Amino acid sequence: MRPKSWGWISMSERLEGKRVRIKAKGKIFEGIVMPSFTGNFVLKLDNGYNVGFKEYELLEVLEVEPFEPHLPELVKREGLPDVKIISTGGTIASKVDYRTGAVTSQFTAEEIASEVPELTEICNVDAELLYNILSENMKPENWIELARHVYKALKDHEGVIITHGTDTMHFSAAALSFMLSTPKPVVFVGAQRSSDRPSSDAAMNLLCAAKAATEDIGEVVVCMHGSTSDDYCLVHRGVKVRKNHTSRRDAFQSVNAKPIGRIDYPSLSVEWLSWRYRRGERELKLTDRLERKVVLIKFFPGLSSDILEYYHSKGYRGFVIEGTGLGHVSTDWIDTLRRVCEDSVVVMTSQCLWGRVCDRVYDTGRDILRAGVIEGEDMLPEVALIKLMWLLGNYSIEEAKEMVKKSVAGEIEPTTQY
Amino acid sequence: MRPKSWGWISMSERLEGKRVRIKAKGKIFEGIVMPSFTGNFVLKLDNGYNVGFKEYELLEVLEVEPFEPHLPELVKREGLPDVKIISTGGTIASKVDYRTGAVTSQFTAEEIASEVPELTEICNVDAELLYNILSENMKPENWIELARHVYKALKDHEGVIITHGTDTMHFSAAALSFMLSTPKPVVFVGAQRSSDRPSSDAAMNLLCAAKAATEDIGEVVVCMHGSTSDDYCLVHRGVKVRKNHTSRRDAFQSVNAKPIGRIDYPSLSVEWLSWRYRRGERELKLTDRLERKVVLIKFFPGLSSDILEYYHSKGYRGFVIEGTGLGHVSTDWIDTLRRVCEDSVVVMTSQCLWGRVCDRVYDTGRDILRAGVIEGEDMLPEVALIKLMWLLGNYSIEEAKEMVKKSVAGEIEPTTQY
Repeated sequence: MRPKSWGWISMSERLEGKRVRIKAKGKIFEGIVMPSFTGNFVLKLDNGYNVGFKEYELLEVLEVEPFEPHLPELVKREGLPDVKIISTGGTIASKVDYRTGAVTSQFTAEEIASEVPELTEICNVDAELLYNILSENMKPENWIELARHVYKALKDHEGVIITHGTDTMHFSAAALSFMLSTPKPVVFVGAQRSSDRPSSDAAMNLLCAAKAATEDIGEVVVCMHGSTSDDYCLVHRGVKVRKNHTSRRDAFQSVNAKPIGRIDYPSLSVEWLSWRYRRGERELKLTDRLERKVVLIKFFPGLSSDILEYYHSKGYRGFVIEGTGLGHVSTDWIDTLRRVCEDSVVVMTSQCLWGRVCDRVYDTGRDILRAGVIEGEDMLPEVALIKLMWLLGNYSIEEAKEMVKKSVAGEIEPTTQY
Repeated sequence: MRPKSWGWISMSERLEGKRVRIKAKGKIFEGIVMPSFTGNFVLKLDNGYNVGFKEYELLEVLEVEPFEPHLPELVKREGLPDVKIISTGGTIASKVDYRTGAVTSQFTAEEIASEVPELTEICNVDAELLYNILSENMKPENWIELARHVYKALKDHEGVIITHGTDTMHFSAAALSFMLSTPKPVVFVGAQRSSDRPSSDAAMNLLCAAKAATEDIGEVVVCMHGSTSDDYCLVHRGVKVRKNHTSRRDAFQSVNAKPIGRIDYPSLSVEWLSWRYRRGERELKLTDRLERKVVLIKFFPGLSSDILEYYHSKGYRGFVIEGTGLGHVSTDWIDTLRRVCEDSVVVMTSQCLWGRVCDRVYDTGRDILRAGVIEGEDMLPEVALIKLMWLLGNYSIEEAKEMVKKSVAGEIEPTTQY
């Protein structure tokens, strides 16, 4: 018999994380109840495998011993660089959740080292749990707080790692790229599959991120799987990277730029693939204000330019448009654009994502430029959005109009890479 | 001396398309004035080359003989299939513009055949100039008119080709995919480089499109360069294709599906790469209403859900959200989503573009589903938008909620292709 649901909450969800004994298919099974994505009742058995059941009989909910880590104290190794790991939540931090039934990770250095012991051969780890939130809930306020914590950590560590949910990791990486001028590596890392799954990318990504954090890098980067195998990670510039797949482990790709480098696994040997800010090249500096009233609008055939008026009337002075092709919107947007451009910064990007905006080729584009719109060059729409939040938070409208065209953190390449 | 500009209109633009004689670099040049993308004064010389000048002296504006094509009359070849070419404008149709100085192409069958004579070996061409507009100016009204013209043409032709600007070609292809059930091929084709440039893709794309229009296909497709070389075109399903580069000739890619086929050039041999609707498989049927009050909203960290209320209060009942990752928005959107879902259809897609939406994995996703949002599976956001315009134009809200989850024109693949 399959237990019925109470309203929206199924039996399986009420038992999530608990140890149970059930009868199914004529046998007895014991294990931890896992979140069910399919409507099945899923158990993690002691051998590590997950098994799903359509029909089962619940025999017993077992008491679990309170989680006592008993982890050995970490001893600092001489000669290894100090690296700070700041956790913000997401799949990569959900490691411990269903192993013990505990839903929230403690995220101590000892815990991380016991999960991924190879880390201690690369660096001396400090750990800090800043947030435990899903990355779709990250807000500009969180970026500011995170930037301040990273700024502080950079003063007495050789590098900083930020574990982050993958949904908005590239937004956060772009935000920190603008807010922080850093002489040391700041490495975002996440996982597409949680650590309780055999295909998890959490440990390998973290090891490669630790390697990156000790390397000759002086900028904010994202380090994630470079292929669907466990053979290498890629290090992407924080302002040129995008999540381009909902579930693949190699979902993160550099767009309109080569990745900065490649870190082979398990050798952790590094190959540089592009130019980069080097360690010590820039001074440590925090410029951490962000203007919230900036909006990204994706154009489509038939979309009325009223949406520009709507945001403008609410006090928005920063607009990023995701236009078509080389950077176009319908001709009937031009009048509204001209009015909005009088006291606002409007940046044109392309929903093609790859390639460079060029509004000098066709009539519509030239009209858009005459209206006062600024070409976003080869910037990703998401990056242009955050750049504008940062510019309008720290500079005047006129300064922002000049600076948005120029590369601040490597977000504009001089020529487009194919 | 470089002629000064009058307001926004430069001398070069006033002369565009006219034949002139100038003095520059100590020599005399004669040719047709081309649109200038760089601020230079550009002449197309009689040998076909374009030359740009920074400084020049205008000597004479020459009268041009009225354009007399003197084209041989096309004779229908027995045994070749009849194909209708409908022109809507865009780069591919700009072929004739600056060859003669005429700004608008006549777009007769004779003209096309004289430009691309190999066409007459593939099919007997009929031609119709429906629009001459840049594709960023296409509107849902144009899709309806276009669908009606194609519907009519399909009755007495073996296939239909639509020449179209590339900016929104994939939107138009998706629109016709839903509006037209077709037993014959309907082939969209465009060019990324206009025919007066040596690197133009116009002729090859048109020849491959003609081949596709005579093949065993019974659906709406897009036929464009498959690589940056002139070696093959790909035939993409109209509801699985997207322009993914601002300028590359192979900008169009199938997303979350394999292309239907590959047409080698110049052999025009066809290789099928995926399933397809076959010729004669479906009845000819036109379902051509579209609801305009449907909107696509791209989510980003910090975006307020007020935007949903704004459109809802204006009578919008169709919403496509471009969420993050597997299909997420911030948790503080849930209450608004629940209210909007009461009388509207809200579809979740992913700004990752590649991969499938799955809101059953994480808490936020499950909350989104409970609010009444429907998973857009592996549909592109743009395709989900147009599908919803079509569903709400022709069916009730309740019917639309059911149909949006099911594949109508091949827009949802049973499993995601990697």
